[in-house]
This record gives sequence, structure tokens and C-alpha cells, in this order.
Amino acid sequence: MIAQALKWIGDVDGYLELVDQRLLPGKYEKLQCRDVEQLHHAIKTLAVRGAPAIGVAAAYGIILGLQGLDSNDQPEDALNVLTDTCEYLATSRPTAVNLFWALDRMKNKGESIVNNHIATDKFCKNLLAEANAICAEDVEMCLKIGRNGEKFIKDGSNILTHCNAGALATAGQGTALSVMFEAQKKGKKFKVYADETRPLLQGARLTVWELKQAEIDVTVICDNMAGWLMKQGGIDAVITGADRIAANGDAANKIGTYSLSILAGKHGIPFYIAAPSSTFDLDIKSGTEITIEQRAPDEVTTFANTKIAPDGIDVYNPAFDVTEASDITAIITERGVIEKPDAEKIAAHLASR
Amino acid sequence: MIAQALKWIGDVDGYLELVDQRLLPGKYEKLQCRDVEQLHHAIKTLAVRGAPAIGVAAAYGIILGLQGLDSNDQPEDALNVLTDTCEYLATSRPTAVNLFWALDRMKNKGESIVNNHIATDKFCKNLLAEANAICAEDVEMCLKIGRNGEKFIKDGSNILTHCNAGALATAGQGTALSVMFEAQKKGKKFKVYADETRPLLQGARLTVWELKQAEIDVTVICDNMAGWLMKQGGIDAVITGADRIAANGDAANKIGTYSLSILAGKHGIPFYIAAPSSTFDLDIKSGTEITIEQRAPDEVTTFANTKIAPDGIDVYNPAFDVTEASDITAIITERGVIEKPDAEKIAAHLASR
Repeated sequence: MIAQALKWIGDVDGYLELVDQRLLPGKYEKLQCRDVEQLHHAIKTLAVRGAPAIGVAAAYGIILGLQGLDSNDQPEDALNVLTDTCEYLATSRPTAVNLFWALDRMKNKGESIVNNHIATDKFCKNLLAEANAICAEDVEMCLKIGRNGEKFIKDGSNILTHCNAGALATAGQGTALSVMFEAQKKGKKFKVYADETRPLLQGARLTVWELKQAEIDVTVICDNMAGWLMKQGGIDAVITGADRIAANGDAANKIGTYSLSILAGKHGIPFYIAAPSSTFDLDIKSGTEITIEQRAPDEVTTFANTKIAPDGIDVYNPAFDVTEASDITAIITERGVIEKPDAEKIAAHLASR
Repeated sequence: MIAQALKWIGDVDGYLELVDQRLLPGKYEKLQCRDVEQLHHAIKTLAVRGAPAIGVAAAYGIILGLQGLDSNDQPEDALNVLTDTCEYLATSRPTAVNLFWALDRMKNKGESIVNNHIATDKFCKNLLAEANAICAEDVEMCLKIGRNGEKFIKDGSNILTHCNAGALATAGQGTALSVMFEAQKKGKKFKVYADETRPLLQGARLTVWELKQAEIDVTVICDNMAGWLMKQGGIDAVITGADRIAANGDAANKIGTYSLSILAGKHGIPFYIAAPSSTFDLDIKSGTEITIEQRAPDEVTTFANTKIAPDGIDVYNPAFDVTEASDITAIITERGVIEKPDAEKIAAHLASR
């Protein structure tokens, strides 16, 4: 069974059901978000995480925000509530691009409804349809990435992945993990090694849980074991997601991905990135222009409230690193596959429809 | 101040004082081992760890075992107690080579005393002298490694280390860290990055603590950050210890070391190993003959007493990996330096005195 990170239950008076990812892997519990404050808190505290999943959750958050309206309210009142809700939800994860993108799309939809003089009682229905569309597009995107990439998983092979680019990070079945789910649907047998992914352990906590749910053979390793496993012939392909890809194909992803790409290259192992085409940022020429966020020291020095390093110690904690296009065998998107990616091929790929 | 892992206090009726490494870095506490059961427990539960430190601790453990003798006991009685104590202490860490080596040396000394008809009252004094000699040799060995290696640390450089090859692992000032301590004594300024070293976090818990105590500038990183740091130009040299080195120079060390050697090579960064010449095992021709111990899954799936992966998940947890001689810039021992190590140079080095 493939996990489903979120689901809208009911009509415009419904609620958003989330898998509470804060409790995984210890507990699998659904969280019902019935008002916008509750959803804001859920996003902020990582009950729901992963750029696409946050975007979809925020779109549904708008519907929660509009539930206070009644039939006497004017279209302009509805638009004000929508705008306020957007502004409020935008503060939940200040750096999440998909969050802003989804909120903007909902706002544009709201403005278009008002400009077209559609009655207030239809305002919410139309916006729910838009949120459903955002969700459905995400599901479809995930599926296509999986279908485009599954050929890279050979029957009987061992695949390595890093962090969580799975169903839990999207409204659909993920990006890198979608490739695995589609290979499984084709009846292929394969084994996955999941890097635990320090410091926040998304691999050990989430990827392993997801793959186990889907009955895919999975083994967890510490990040520093991947190279040795490759050396032993234990890995046939690496597949990860990406957070942002430059015009030349350099790809920012969770810290540790760069090292994997170098180690894969050294051992002659193909290295694939699976990500939606919206991940490309053509304004960025190459990876050197990508700013790397430094995160809080206590992510590294504290675990489950236990200090693992002396007080006041210096910590280097970059959230991401950048894998060079020349170390990427192929980028898999919902549109197809870019083999040996470069600026020209990427531009052609993105112009393809 | 350089830490001291252990110290014998007093004469033959004295006791062994240990830094209780189970409590670091949270608490710095001395543990007084006043009987052999207590020491056995301390070794078993990692209050004292690191191959050389365990060896020295066990040698002193023999003295604790002999404290039950009185002046009426015959030399043969003393020898029996010695033998029993050796057998008992050998069960504390079943795979620790230095432990067996030190116990054998103490036993041989005991037999030689008895064969030379030395009186029982001198038996213990002679054995304490032997334990002190083992300890002093270890201290001297550490110092020489540091002096032979410090030239590889340039003023103003950034050094990366992995796991703990420091004073806490020896009776002296360590191996890889000794190189740093000697560079510091020469007045060089440099910065150390310490890999946290999953799964047991010896880097974050012990190396960082030791370097901070010694007032060496230290920053902790997760293991998966090292490659990216190298790519940024943030590392000028890598120095690690080794657990076992084959006749051709292939070196087994804490899991993760192999990947560091590949990443260092990719970025043109010298990779040094600092280890006593006793680490060479000439019976082993190359690294492929070194058996890699697989350790318990819960070292990986449990972090600071919290479960971080689903129950019953498969885990790959090799304790060590093997770095190839061709990826090692130089091996630093107490006898000198073997640059670009190979079987011929190593044989000559070990025959040098």
C-alpha cells in the first residue's frame, strides 16, 4: 500500500486529513485539520512536509479559511477572507516555494471568480475545485515521473535513495519513490537501501516506513555506509529527488546528495534525479548561484532531547548541497527523461509542451 | 589541556582511575576501578574504549586481580590468580586485539618472574612495573606519531577527522589527534572538522570534546556533509586512525573512512592515516582479506534511546570499511612516515628497527 500524505474529506464544509508525520515511524495517525489555525500549526511543526505536499495542503487551507462565510456575504467579503487566509498561511513555512505558488494560484482563482461576477455561494465550490485540481495535477505528475523512470530499475537490482522523495512529500506517490512504486507495479523485484539522512533522519523515519508499507524490500544504512556498499557491488543505481535545478542541470538536494553523486561516479553506478519540471529554475544559470541555507546547530547536536555534542560547540549544518550536472546520468520529470543533462537539452525539454 | 583516559593511582595496592566515557560529553567524571569486576564492567560498557586504552586498562586490571594475595601465598598461587584474572578480563571485549596482547604480555611476565624464583612479595611489584611499561610505551608511541605527523598540518589549514583516534582511545595523547596536538604545540593555528561518526557518534561525543578541552578550534558536521565541505574548499587534509593495516597498506578503519578517502582524492586533498606500527598485520596481504564485523541493528535504528526507524526493519551496519593503499597519501607511525604506502615500503618501514 502506497501512503497518502493528505486527503480532503467532504465538500466545501469538509476538512483536511493528514498523516501526522511528526509521529512516524513510531505511530501512524491521521490528523484532521478543521480550521486554518490548525493547518498552519501542522505545516509549521512538520506534521505535513515536502514542498508539493505543503502546496496542496495550503490550497485546501484556503477552503478551511472560507468556511466562516455565510450566504449573505458579498463576493468582495469572500475575496478579503481569501487574501487574509493566504497571508496567514504564507507565514507557516517562510521559504517554501510551492506554498507561495499554491496560495497565489488560489488567490488568482478567487479574483477571477469575483471579476466574472459569480455568486458567493459558488465562490467556495469553485475554489475547492481549484484546490482539487492542484492536488490532482500533483498526483498525475508523480505518476508520470514514476512511469518515465521505472525503466532505470532493472529486475533484481539494488537501488540507493537519500532523504524522503516519497508519497509523504507530495499529494501523489512521490518523485524518486514513485519510480520504485512503478517498477514494483511492473512486477520487478529489487531491493532499496535508504540513507538515514542526518541530521533530520527523513530516510530512516519516513522513506523506510513508506517502502515497508508498500512491501518493497528496504534496508536502512547510515549515510557514511553508502560508499562502502557501492564498493562491495551492493548498489546498481542511485535515485534521489531534487529541491531546485539550475538551467544547466546542476541540482540542489538534501545535504549528502553531492557526495553520493561522486561516489556513484567513482564506482560506475548511474545517478538519477526524479523531480517535477517545476523544479527547474531557469533564472539560475548554474549551481554556484544557488544559495545554501544553513540550519540551526541543535539539529545536529541534539537528538530526541539528548545532547550528543558538548555545549556551545561550532556546527556546520547546510540543508542542501549541489550535485553537478556532469555527475547526473539522467533527470526524470513528468515530461520524460533528460539523459546527460545540459542547458540545451533542458531548455528543449521544458519547451516540449 | 589534553585529556587522559586512564591513570594508575598509588602502588600495588592502588587503583585505576578512568575518564568515564559513557557520560561524555554531558558529564566529565572520573571512575575509580578498585577491583577487577569493576574494571571488567567498565571495559564491557565502554567506560574505557579504544584499542590501546583497553590494553593498558587490562594490564592494570591484573594488578587489581592480584590484590587479594597475601605474603604467605606461594609464587605458584600468584601465577594461578594471574591466569584466572587474564581469562576473566579477556571476556570483557571479545574482539579487542590489544586486550589479548596486553594480557598475554602480563602473563608472560608473571611466568618469567616465577621461573626466575623471585619472591611473591616482589611478584606484584614486578607486574605493576610491567603494566607501567605498557602504559609508558603507549604514551611514547602516541607522542612520536604526533611528532612525525605534525608537518602535514599547515598553519591556517582546515583538517577533517573521523571517529575518535584521540587521547580517550589510548593511554597517551592519541594517534590522529596526537598529530593535531603536536601541530598546536608548534604554535600552528588550524581548524578541525569532526565527522559526528554514525552510528555511535564517537566524533560528536568524544573527538569534539577532546579538541575543545585542548582549545583547538573544532566544528562538528554530519558525515554526509564532508564531501560538500571539500567541494567548497573547506578541507586541506584528512587525518584518521586505523584499526588494522594489511601488508600492502590497505587500512581498515571506522565505517565512513573509505568514502572520505574517495572524496578527498576527487578534490585533490591529501589523506593521512596515523596509527602505531603494531596496527600492521603482515599476515593479511590486502584489504580484501580483512573480515568486516557487522554490528547490532539497534545501533542504527535507535538514537539516544529513541527509535528512529520502524520496528523490525533490515539494517546494514558494518563497523569498519577498508581504504585502499592507493588512496592513502601517507601512513604516519611512531617510527616515521610511509608516503604512498605499498608492500615494499611497509616491509622496509617495519624492519627499520
